[in-house]
Amino acid sequence: MTKRKIINDPVYDGFLSIDDPVILAVIEHPFFQRQRRIKQLGLTFLVYPGAMHTRFSHMLGALNLMGRALEVLRQKGVEISDEECRGAKLAILLHDIGHGPFSHTSERVLVDVEHERITLLMMQRINEEMNGALDTAIAIFSNTYPKHFLHQLVSSQLDMDRLDYLSRDSFFTGVSEGIVGTDRIISMLNVHGDELVVDEKGIYSVEKFIISRRLMYWQVYMHKTVIAADQLLLGSIRRARELDPSVFRLDPSSADFIDRFAELDDDDIMVAVKRWQHSDDEVLSTLCRNLVNRHLPAIRISNEPFPEQAKSYFTGTGKLKNRSYDFNDQEIKVLYKDGRCVSISEASDQLDRHFLEKQVTKYFLYQPK
Amino acid sequence: MTKRKIINDPVYDGFLSIDDPVILAVIEHPFFQRQRRIKQLGLTFLVYPGAMHTRFSHMLGALNLMGRALEVLRQKGVEISDEECRGAKLAILLHDIGHGPFSHTSERVLVDVEHERITLLMMQRINEEMNGALDTAIAIFSNTYPKHFLHQLVSSQLDMDRLDYLSRDSFFTGVSEGIVGTDRIISMLNVHGDELVVDEKGIYSVEKFIISRRLMYWQVYMHKTVIAADQLLLGSIRRARELDPSVFRLDPSSADFIDRFAELDDDDIMVAVKRWQHSDDEVLSTLCRNLVNRHLPAIRISNEPFPEQAKSYFTGTGKLKNRSYDFNDQEIKVLYKDGRCVSISEASDQLDRHFLEKQVTKYFLYQPK
Amino acid sequence: MTKRKIINDPVYDGFLSIDDPVILAVIEHPFFQRQRRIKQLGLTFLVYPGAMHTRFSHMLGALNLMGRALEVLRQKGVEISDEECRGAKLAILLHDIGHGPFSHTSERVLVDVEHERITLLMMQRINEEMNGALDTAIAIFSNTYPKHFLHQLVSSQLDMDRLDYLSRDSFFTGVSEGIVGTDRIISMLNVHGDELVVDEKGIYSVEKFIISRRLMYWQVYMHKTVIAADQLLLGSIRRARELDPSVFRLDPSSADFIDRFAELDDDDIMVAVKRWQHSDDEVLSTLCRNLVNRHLPAIRISNEPFPEQAKSYFTGTGKLKNRSYDFNDQEIKVLYKDGRCVSISEASDQLDRHFLEKQVTKYFLYQPK
Amino acid sequence: MTKRKIINDPVYDGFLSIDDPVILAVIEHPFFQRQRRIKQLGLTFLVYPGAMHTRFSHMLGALNLMGRALEVLRQKGVEISDEECRGAKLAILLHDIGHGPFSHTSERVLVDVEHERITLLMMQRINEEMNGALDTAIAIFSNTYPKHFLHQLVSSQLDMDRLDYLSRDSFFTGVSEGIVGTDRIISMLNVHGDELVVDEKGIYSVEKFIISRRLMYWQVYMHKTVIAADQLLLGSIRRARELDPSVFRLDPSSADFIDRFAELDDDDIMVAVKRWQHSDDEVLSTLCRNLVNRHLPAIRISNEPFPEQAKSYFTGTGKLKNRSYDFNDQEIKVLYKDGRCVSISEASDQLDRHFLEKQVTKYFLYQPK
Repeated sequence: MTKRKIINDPVYDGFLSIDDPVILAVIEHPFFQRQRRIKQLGLTFLVYPGAMHTRFSHMLGALNLMGRALEVLRQKGVEISDEECRGAKLAILLHDIGHGPFSHTSERVLVDVEHERITLLMMQRINEEMNGALDTAIAIFSNTYPKHFLHQLVSSQLDMDRLDYLSRDSFFTGVSEGIVGTDRIISMLNVHGDELVVDEKGIYSVEKFIISRRLMYWQVYMHKTVIAADQLLLGSIRRARELDPSVFRLDPSSADFIDRFAELDDDDIMVAVKRWQHSDDEVLSTLCRNLVNRHLPAIRISNEPFPEQAKSYFTGTGKLKNRSYDFNDQEIKVLYKDGRCVSISEASDQLDRHFLEKQVTKYFLYQPK
Repeated sequence: MTKRKIINDPVYDGFLSIDDPVILAVIEHPFFQRQRRIKQLGLTFLVYPGAMHTRFSHMLGALNLMGRALEVLRQKGVEISDEECRGAKLAILLHDIGHGPFSHTSERVLVDVEHERITLLMMQRINEEMNGALDTAIAIFSNTYPKHFLHQLVSSQLDMDRLDYLSRDSFFTGVSEGIVGTDRIISMLNVHGDELVVDEKGIYSVEKFIISRRLMYWQVYMHKTVIAADQLLLGSIRRARELDPSVFRLDPSSADFIDRFAELDDDDIMVAVKRWQHSDDEVLSTLCRNLVNRHLPAIRISNEPFPEQAKSYFTGTGKLKNRSYDFNDQEIKVLYKDGRCVSISEASDQLDRHFLEKQVTKYFLYQPK
Repeated sequence: MTKRKIINDPVYDGFLSIDDPVILAVIEHPFFQRQRRIKQLGLTFLVYPGAMHTRFSHMLGALNLMGRALEVLRQKGVEISDEECRGAKLAILLHDIGHGPFSHTSERVLVDVEHERITLLMMQRINEEMNGALDTAIAIFSNTYPKHFLHQLVSSQLDMDRLDYLSRDSFFTGVSEGIVGTDRIISMLNVHGDELVVDEKGIYSVEKFIISRRLMYWQVYMHKTVIAADQLLLGSIRRARELDPSVFRLDPSSADFIDRFAELDDDDIMVAVKRWQHSDDEVLSTLCRNLVNRHLPAIRISNEPFPEQAKSYFTGTGKLKNRSYDFNDQEIKVLYKDGRCVSISEASDQLDRHFLEKQVTKYFLYQPK
Repeated sequence: MTKRKIINDPVYDGFLSIDDPVILAVIEHPFFQRQRRIKQLGLTFLVYPGAMHTRFSHMLGALNLMGRALEVLRQKGVEISDEECRGAKLAILLHDIGHGPFSHTSERVLVDVEHERITLLMMQRINEEMNGALDTAIAIFSNTYPKHFLHQLVSSQLDMDRLDYLSRDSFFTGVSEGIVGTDRIISMLNVHGDELVVDEKGIYSVEKFIISRRLMYWQVYMHKTVIAADQLLLGSIRRARELDPSVFRLDPSSADFIDRFAELDDDDIMVAVKRWQHSDDEVLSTLCRNLVNRHLPAIRISNEPFPEQAKSYFTGTGKLKNRSYDFNDQEIKVLYKDGRCVSISEASDQLDRHFLEKQVTKYFLYQPK
């Protein structure tokens, strides 16, 4: 009898049903289970208390959407073999596995390796343990697989990663701006040549999706209070290392790097920060007490750069950038009934190039309240 | 200008707006902020990955409902002074503050003091620091305040605690069985004599509420896989203490008990469990590895007790009980338009005494898979 | 290229995608399109203003659920041919097609033929026009098809009809009591022998479903204000016929009965009622003005019969009955992992025979306000 | 004892509670009850089967939002008397009361009077009957009341009308693009000088609102299949009048114009169309059969005008226009913490003047399939 696992997911009002033994085995792998202890949005819960959701749930959600997308494409006559289906599912399931604790915050500080690089190392390790069961997945993930559109389902302007995280982050923060018609967008996916495209009828949904991303960017992903909290966490880790350079120090060139990295999660950081509250170093103990008790620095946002400041652990400046849609990246393409295939910036009446290209840069200054 | 804080809460499709400086000060207290690091449902996230929500969010949610309930009662002519409003709000806000890490699981193991006792100690401490601002709240919480119905809003068969946690746990697990018409129930609240009652039109909603609690009990609160995980956590802590009696040991009689207790949260337990994976003691390291990687024991549930087993760290038996409605506790009363006030078991066509009294006991046996 | 129709349905947060040409043809048939003009819940919109939804949308919703159920069963290894799939879909799509205007209200008054009988006549007519394309559907609907479980999907304690209408009526009325985990129940369906059953894990969801039906019964389907409005409508039609026996009179024995019946819908009744407001007969004009302007009679509900009244067009008594679960009807069966198959009344800890058998009868008396 | 009415509204997950006797009396007025029989979106249900919702429910929904908005403004210290509250509520409650059957479709054909004019006539009539109880409401509606911001709550770029219909139409069609954070926007309303403004924190929500309106415009309000159906309905009425000029003919100068107008609703039109199916005139009978059975003309949309056609009852061309935001109309203003008050086109990083000013014109051609 087939083993089948059903996982509830409040985001899609339902659940995910999995019976592929390879996918089940990957989910049970310690590298994957570890993502239960890494929050998807880092310190955002200090502003949106519901935002405690984990990368684990995001990765399962993206798997769910991938399953639906593959089904839609097959129904429209796109040829995708069973092995390719599994590969695409595994690729999306593992696409974020290399994230460390408080990922976007700490990435630059804790380890000098990009999370994409670590993701690939972890995938390769699991692949070895599973005798090559991830070969196709790794090829799709790395964009070396011949059918390019499979990679686009994993990573492009309209991939299952983005579709899931927008809905998920919106659900858990309670910020309705991120609600996108996921089902509708997926039902409009198609393949033209070897490109992932959107059927004509899906134009409005794609417009909504692009705009939602932009709105979520400012309301959630770049929320100024979260930026302020991030500075506290970064400052705490930097100061702790100044006092003791071995703190959370991993050597990317060592043989057990991946294993040691896989042991770190959000909990370790928070427990360390709590402990550092009692440090003899007043800078460190103050920073950590402020973070634990949510005494965040004051932060101001401006369209103009702030004048240079004497930088300290408590005061500093920085820059935020957003462009809703990246032209260097591949453009979303729309497929018309008459066979024409044009970019969304041409197809859309709402979103012209002017809007899409617009890049917003803001500057911030944080300092003690 | 009044300081006002707006907190998003996805459960009620909206947010909570607070401008009472006393309530804002209590929320900023470290004892309260600590609840951000204690999950409402302990290890339940191992079964329902969305269930990462914290006691912090539950306590704010209950505050939100309390505000609405007080408004409804006042509109119906019930006299409640501003000080009593604040008191009832503070009482519900703090009603769970004494919970420790993985509360229901670890309470019996970590500290030999009931969480209600610790809640009171913490409320008293905050009250001292705030020069008696919590006097009314403590009286309401302890049921020594003259207007009894205020205590019932905090703790009774139909209190704001239960109303919030059913909706919240349902929202984050994705188990729709717990959805209750919170707004409707609250709009039906009334006071008769000094008793909190429900207007006649609210009978069906109350029935739904009682049944939902029962269904949630078996689908979430007593889910067998969560019980299995709980046994692993309890076994890990017990074994660690056997090896080192000082582990997480607090002395309730010491002067700094509350402060030391307040430093413990879910993160500390999980980091310890992760560390214990590397213990020389094979029992401890196995238990902890199993928990971290979610290799849970097999568990069987039965209506009959299991035969006695040689109890070990890996095998054991236990008992689960539920009664949807407790007759020893105060009964929910229904107020008819003609002035009669009868208990729900009489008023309801659906839920007679037979159903309400029914107590279900189940037995479980866990052992290695 | 295949013709494909996508229909939005707010109830399931999504839409229905249809590409079977036979199903598309049936949907386009005038008998089916007519259901756009018949409200699912008759006069209920006078109490719940959102309840304007039509039988048309219910029948498409039931089709949607049938599609999912068949897919689930096939995935579990139940053999269902493509022709059987189509047959089951057509049977559920058409199961209510014989309903007349304000169905449950007017059925007893307008035409002396049960709607089930008319449904069959209409199915046969469409079948003739489509050269037997509905043969299998009619066999499944009439329970003469060998695979009994297909009929059970269309008509049983747990059919797609009930699953859809509970969710749909709940959605449009805003009464949350009817929300059932449709997706979850469907995912738990299975076939044992030739019986539709529910997998063990679905027990709680089925309990919820049975209880929700009971609560919706009293909160919506038997809402006393709707009963009061129904009496007005029935009185108006009866009085109009007394004055002119040909009013809306159809002869079931005439050759064009079905065609004439198919021309009647809610709009005709309402326009007649509006016209009758200006009748010279004061009884008729009063009844109709009261209905149009929603001046409804006072209505009282009691557990005891009311004393006999001098019955008039404005005053009268009646009886309401409900039993959440019908033992004469086939019982819902639960399939355990060990192969046992027992009835829900045995399997459930919540719903014992006592609860399920309980039949509630209430009596009503209406009279001018 | 106060009479209180509670009305369920699925859109806001709750209900509306009304106890003002004047408002209750207005709701019970036949002119208002009549809106139960006029669909909010005319023939849109032919594309989105859920869109059966009525103007009645929209007007109550707008009343609900008005109540919340007034409460928010009062909490922020804006002075609004009880009489002004009632006036603003009555003004929004009645703002659409003059709509006729299939309003936007038939307005130009059935009666040569704008619905705003009829709304005012009806309000004046009710006011007479209620001895001037609507004086303030009429002043606010007509923008002659000194506090200008009250009129803006009823009619402006950000009025309660638009807020409600976007959410409502989105809910019933199932098109998620229209979901706007209504609660959040309302909580951000403020008054500066005598102008309705939005607090700084509400910028993103307002952006979302403007964009949602634009997306709903093309996905729902100007859906090409609905346009095609509208042409059929317009053609049917025009042809019927050509054959019999008295059809649905009202004389705006006659004394009983308003009363006769108030007797017309969607049902009358549909019943006439059904009757006309049997007309001897083949043009009329064909148009009507096509509409009843949903055999809609083919319709093409283009960015360029179509060449002139020989216009007939079955073929024709037309023009569609949309601008998400109207500069001639009053601009939405944003109030900053520092007291500055600037227009949204300046305040927004997303929506610059270029985007907001963009007016999209499309052309359509319909002809038999």
